[in-house]
Amino acid sequence: MIGTHSITSGRMDMTGMVTDLREFRSLDLPTLDSFIFGGWEIRSSTLMDGAEELYRVTRSISAETLAASLPFLEEVQRNVRPGVTFGLNRLLSRFPDVVLPRDCAAASVERLRQDIRDFRKSNGIERVIVVNVASTEPLPTRPLDWSTPEAFAAAVGGDDDRLTPALLYAYASLLEGCPYLNFTPSAGTEVPGLSALALANGLPHSGKDGKTGETLLKTVLAPMFVARNFRVLAWEGFNMLGNRDGLILDDPGSNSAKIANKDAVLKKTLGDRLGHTRTRIDYVPSLDDWKVAWDYIHFEGFMGTRMSLSFQWNGCDSMLAAPLVLDLVRLLCHEHSRGAVGIQKQLAVFFKNPIGTGENDFIAQHFELLRHYR
Amino acid sequence: MIGTHSITSGRMDMTGMVTDLREFRSLDLPTLDSFIFGGWEIRSSTLMDGAEELYRVTRSISAETLAASLPFLEEVQRNVRPGVTFGLNRLLSRFPDVVLPRDCAAASVERLRQDIRDFRKSNGIERVIVVNVASTEPLPTRPLDWSTPEAFAAAVGGDDDRLTPALLYAYASLLEGCPYLNFTPSAGTEVPGLSALALANGLPHSGKDGKTGETLLKTVLAPMFVARNFRVLAWEGFNMLGNRDGLILDDPGSNSAKIANKDAVLKKTLGDRLGHTRTRIDYVPSLDDWKVAWDYIHFEGFMGTRMSLSFQWNGCDSMLAAPLVLDLVRLLCHEHSRGAVGIQKQLAVFFKNPIGTGENDFIAQHFELLRHYR
Amino acid sequence: MIGTHSITSGRMDMTGMVTDLREFRSLDLPTLDSFIFGGWEIRSSTLMDGAEELYRVTRSISAETLAASLPFLEEVQRNVRPGVTFGLNRLLSRFPDVVLPRDCAAASVERLRQDIRDFRKSNGIERVIVVNVASTEPLPTRPLDWSTPEAFAAAVGGDDDRLTPALLYAYASLLEGCPYLNFTPSAGTEVPGLSALALANGLPHSGKDGKTGETLLKTVLAPMFVARNFRVLAWEGFNMLGNRDGLILDDPGSNSAKIANKDAVLKKTLGDRLGHTRTRIDYVPSLDDWKVAWDYIHFEGFMGTRMSLSFQWNGCDSMLAAPLVLDLVRLLCHEHSRGAVGIQKQLAVFFKNPIGTGENDFIAQHFELLRHYR
Amino acid sequence: MIGTHSITSGRMDMTGMVTDLREFRSLDLPTLDSFIFGGWEIRSSTLMDGAEELYRVTRSISAETLAASLPFLEEVQRNVRPGVTFGLNRLLSRFPDVVLPRDCAAASVERLRQDIRDFRKSNGIERVIVVNVASTEPLPTRPLDWSTPEAFAAAVGGDDDRLTPALLYAYASLLEGCPYLNFTPSAGTEVPGLSALALANGLPHSGKDGKTGETLLKTVLAPMFVARNFRVLAWEGFNMLGNRDGLILDDPGSNSAKIANKDAVLKKTLGDRLGHTRTRIDYVPSLDDWKVAWDYIHFEGFMGTRMSLSFQWNGCDSMLAAPLVLDLVRLLCHEHSRGAVGIQKQLAVFFKNPIGTGENDFIAQHFELLRHYR
Repeated sequence: MIGTHSITSGRMDMTGMVTDLREFRSLDLPTLDSFIFGGWEIRSSTLMDGAEELYRVTRSISAETLAASLPFLEEVQRNVRPGVTFGLNRLLSRFPDVVLPRDCAAASVERLRQDIRDFRKSNGIERVIVVNVASTEPLPTRPLDWSTPEAFAAAVGGDDDRLTPALLYAYASLLEGCPYLNFTPSAGTEVPGLSALALANGLPHSGKDGKTGETLLKTVLAPMFVARNFRVLAWEGFNMLGNRDGLILDDPGSNSAKIANKDAVLKKTLGDRLGHTRTRIDYVPSLDDWKVAWDYIHFEGFMGTRMSLSFQWNGCDSMLAAPLVLDLVRLLCHEHSRGAVGIQKQLAVFFKNPIGTGENDFIAQHFELLRHYR
Repeated sequence: MIGTHSITSGRMDMTGMVTDLREFRSLDLPTLDSFIFGGWEIRSSTLMDGAEELYRVTRSISAETLAASLPFLEEVQRNVRPGVTFGLNRLLSRFPDVVLPRDCAAASVERLRQDIRDFRKSNGIERVIVVNVASTEPLPTRPLDWSTPEAFAAAVGGDDDRLTPALLYAYASLLEGCPYLNFTPSAGTEVPGLSALALANGLPHSGKDGKTGETLLKTVLAPMFVARNFRVLAWEGFNMLGNRDGLILDDPGSNSAKIANKDAVLKKTLGDRLGHTRTRIDYVPSLDDWKVAWDYIHFEGFMGTRMSLSFQWNGCDSMLAAPLVLDLVRLLCHEHSRGAVGIQKQLAVFFKNPIGTGENDFIAQHFELLRHYR
Repeated sequence: MIGTHSITSGRMDMTGMVTDLREFRSLDLPTLDSFIFGGWEIRSSTLMDGAEELYRVTRSISAETLAASLPFLEEVQRNVRPGVTFGLNRLLSRFPDVVLPRDCAAASVERLRQDIRDFRKSNGIERVIVVNVASTEPLPTRPLDWSTPEAFAAAVGGDDDRLTPALLYAYASLLEGCPYLNFTPSAGTEVPGLSALALANGLPHSGKDGKTGETLLKTVLAPMFVARNFRVLAWEGFNMLGNRDGLILDDPGSNSAKIANKDAVLKKTLGDRLGHTRTRIDYVPSLDDWKVAWDYIHFEGFMGTRMSLSFQWNGCDSMLAAPLVLDLVRLLCHEHSRGAVGIQKQLAVFFKNPIGTGENDFIAQHFELLRHYR
Repeated sequence: MIGTHSITSGRMDMTGMVTDLREFRSLDLPTLDSFIFGGWEIRSSTLMDGAEELYRVTRSISAETLAASLPFLEEVQRNVRPGVTFGLNRLLSRFPDVVLPRDCAAASVERLRQDIRDFRKSNGIERVIVVNVASTEPLPTRPLDWSTPEAFAAAVGGDDDRLTPALLYAYASLLEGCPYLNFTPSAGTEVPGLSALALANGLPHSGKDGKTGETLLKTVLAPMFVARNFRVLAWEGFNMLGNRDGLILDDPGSNSAKIANKDAVLKKTLGDRLGHTRTRIDYVPSLDDWKVAWDYIHFEGFMGTRMSLSFQWNGCDSMLAAPLVLDLVRLLCHEHSRGAVGIQKQLAVFFKNPIGTGENDFIAQHFELLRHYR
């Protein structure tokens, strides 16, 4: 939101946004100043608190940007409603600032739907895109095998213990006719029952898990090892991060969910030529909003010669994710307006684990994006 | 040659060779055991000496490989003739083991042509591919503007001081009907007069400067910065190497030639979004045949946020270059046999500075290679 | 042993050995050619097999060195006896090449003592130094609180389930009048009952856990952060290794033992100024005998400015450890011959977790070593 | 100055200042709130401009710190006088914001002396410590061999073309009875004639070139390679920086001066065991006040095994240098008040190239500092 406001007020340009590339300029994408923000939040802190934190702790925004954004954020804050926490009791016990309403699943969904209807009405708008940018939820312990909208509805009715907020948000959104984006590794519209619901309701959707840092580099570099016919003896990735996402990933369940998405990428691209791989994500509080990653790639070339490549990445997590979320909203809004329905495979380049496609080569994904919109 | 022998004798597989990829298996490429090697050398040392050095100093081949290869190298050594040094007196004065025949340009060319004819005759073969894998020559101080074969011939006749061995080898090869590959940054068939000669004689050719290490990574990574709409504030590359190539690059002239090729790559891909760039190549004797490169990339993303990526590459130069030379010979031989003529643009992926094409994105080049041979 | 033979036969110099420094040359240290090797082994493979592996897999020794060493190793092999495995059944089940004699503790000790007596007799020597260079054992689950030699003897007599081979080797050695060195993180002579036994028997001893790589660097770098009054916000260490030690460290118990020693070092030096720290040791098979470590140090300086230092270490584990073992044997032998008794604190520089002293600054430890022997 | 004010006003603590260590607390050092700042400047910009730049470009201070410091800086600005530029015409032609008074050397010195007298008088103080924190000057082309105060005076009288501002500031300071600190690699009180003048006038002095980043690490790490008896095959250091210092170092003369100081350190510590070394300092504008350094150390251990260590340093130059300047002023002030005269060797730890001592091991220097003040 701060980014959007900074751009629309002329303080910043669109660097970091893919839809700012020359190739997208002739498309009739919604402009940033047509965006109206709203959302759900489970903590008691406000958007303004979050902005203060970005300034004071991370220093990723300047005092001027903070000051200029606060009035805008106060306006958006009016569109923020309490989120749902169904199924997350164990995890959330570590976060004392989380208010825990104890709704059942069906009541949670009903409340979310009402929030969407209110948001539409009070802002006088029709098209609402819902994006999951919440922290990672633990991996389900049993398969999410609801294969029809009806099966999903029954699960909601019966407070199935595999349900999590991510699934309820997605469900409520689809029921209310909102295109849906899953920017997290949590479960989403890849669940067959939800995917079928999106089709039934004529909605486009996409996901999952925004590709912002170390995994981005993996999908950029791994294809080279294939193209040069190298054997990757080991690819070891070490991630450190210090923000709330990092704290949540200190929970083994959430950590596994995230790592599963990160590891899959290499296996898909390298297949048999991958020997050993391991991805670690560690919480290092002092890094705040910064992600420091170090990957070590041990590989074998001609005549059995063993060589290595290592890289160190210093990225600001929010500032890498935010522009991609804006890009995705613009593109999904565009798709919705022209009647596209179902999984939007052309958006694979934005995701660590793109649903509906097996393509993981970053540049191939990028070419596909360009081709689609040309 | 050691690699070829190791593969044909079953001691090694083709890891590191691009033409070993599944996509090339249905092509009728010449097999490695059909290769007959020969060449020119300006030093007094033999192929066997070079192999000893690879074993003893670099340890890039094992004692077993050395022992197994020596008889094969002794056989090849019979096909090795003295090279030419026209125009390199200053540079070569630093290499006491170089025998310096003082032929004029025309006599040098005549000798090289006779060597090719002898090689063909004594080995009973027709198709000869000539590859320049010599050390880097200094950049020409004036443009190599010979625009026709006749102009080039006149330069040879007049001992033009811009002529270097690389140009004389290329010229002799084309005159003898040999397809030509320039694996070095030295001048080659991009000179208009030579390019025209290749066309006139119905020969395919390609170049220049094999893309084996740091530049390979540059062409892999730079497109990501474009695709994600980042501004590259600085891309600083530091290369260290310790073999004869490194020693030659300690000469400012040769160093400039090499760096020009390395820098161009980023400018072509990043264009306006590249702020500052510098490439350094330093001779560090103890590294022997190993190249250690460290690149630091400072970039700006959303909201003016400055982030960085750095990588450390430890590669064995010979073992990265050798398989690509074999690939190129196989592919150019194939092209020649099916009548292809002129610059082979589909081979761009193999070169730092591909002649005849502006495409520098590694994966785009790789896709083009696959597309062409599909 | 290969190193010793290479040096005494004039093939290599003493680079990497601390006792080769000028400061030690006037001391009357035992020369390497006076060493007679022997030992215990629990695997069925021989010293010659190990040497083959060093040559073939790690390439850390050359074919010439291998060939030159084999006769020497065959001679030593005659002095190698089966080791003991009391208490390690769970761990050893992962190593099919380990022969598992099922002796009770007392019988194990008796066998080891007889081995030492035989070794003395058959080689006609008096002074035997015993060094633990076995793989890391799991941390004890309860304190090793035997406070007297008698209490320890009772534990042995009662097959106490906290006993491990490391403790039995140490006990047998001290009973046989052998000075003892613990080069591993396993339990050793820091156990009060064993320490008291060493005193009672007039024996010098030292330990524990040889300081060869990442921890060495920690003790070199950490004092700088103190001396410059920086606050260390985070020190995150990632170790990868691929040899048998690495495989053993894949066992969570052994891993904890090793990490406890590695983490302690920073806490001792940095105290309150250390924020967060974590050490990881991961098994990466392709690295064989090489250890690759990457440490990231996030620190705060003047005006709350946050800066960082990271380092990448590529070391050959055996080649870093071996010379230190030789140094320690020479120095402990020297101490024994001049009647020194008890913990040899001046040897702290060789150990990650030096027993008997709180000094962890590498250079301070080095100065203490030099001072002692001056 | 901003740091001092931040500390005295209670906004920041003394992290990064060596004299804040426990060991110095019992010494009667001058407190920061007793400091009165003044100085010379050759640019037209003010201290307030500099602070704005620190905030806006580098982001090394916050908006709050900037706002809080401006009134203090305005006060100090009254004590800032125009500097001298004698002998720097060529270099300064690249800096359009430098006002160039064309005084002869003697008039420059006279003016500086009057400035010091005015500063003393208007602030009612007696003890003035002068510190050179200007940008690096080019290396002298001929030796600065003035061996007596008289010879130096004659050089000043004759406008000797080897004179530079650094020398004139030092000379004027010593004539006015001010202890002198040289925090730069420029010439200073190591010139025999100036050293003799300091002695004659009863003044303590020290230098030269503050040890803040890559060289600090060199003096921390190099002793380890000696202590472990490793052979350093190559130590290659690459420095990138983006501030005015960096711009000045783009001048080959200044660059050589800086590098000479940086290279000397390794040679002094490693002596014969150093094979190859090279230090590069490159100007990378986008880094602003940040210094990014990468060093690669190739070393040989036991059995000729070749290993490597590399490190990446991200430091904020000003924030590393500033606290050391404050430390040095406190300590030199203390020495002056207790009558110490001549080179203060105990301060070696603060300098890349400490005058008056050959000790370059950082920890040895630190121990010497502690010992002296104990």
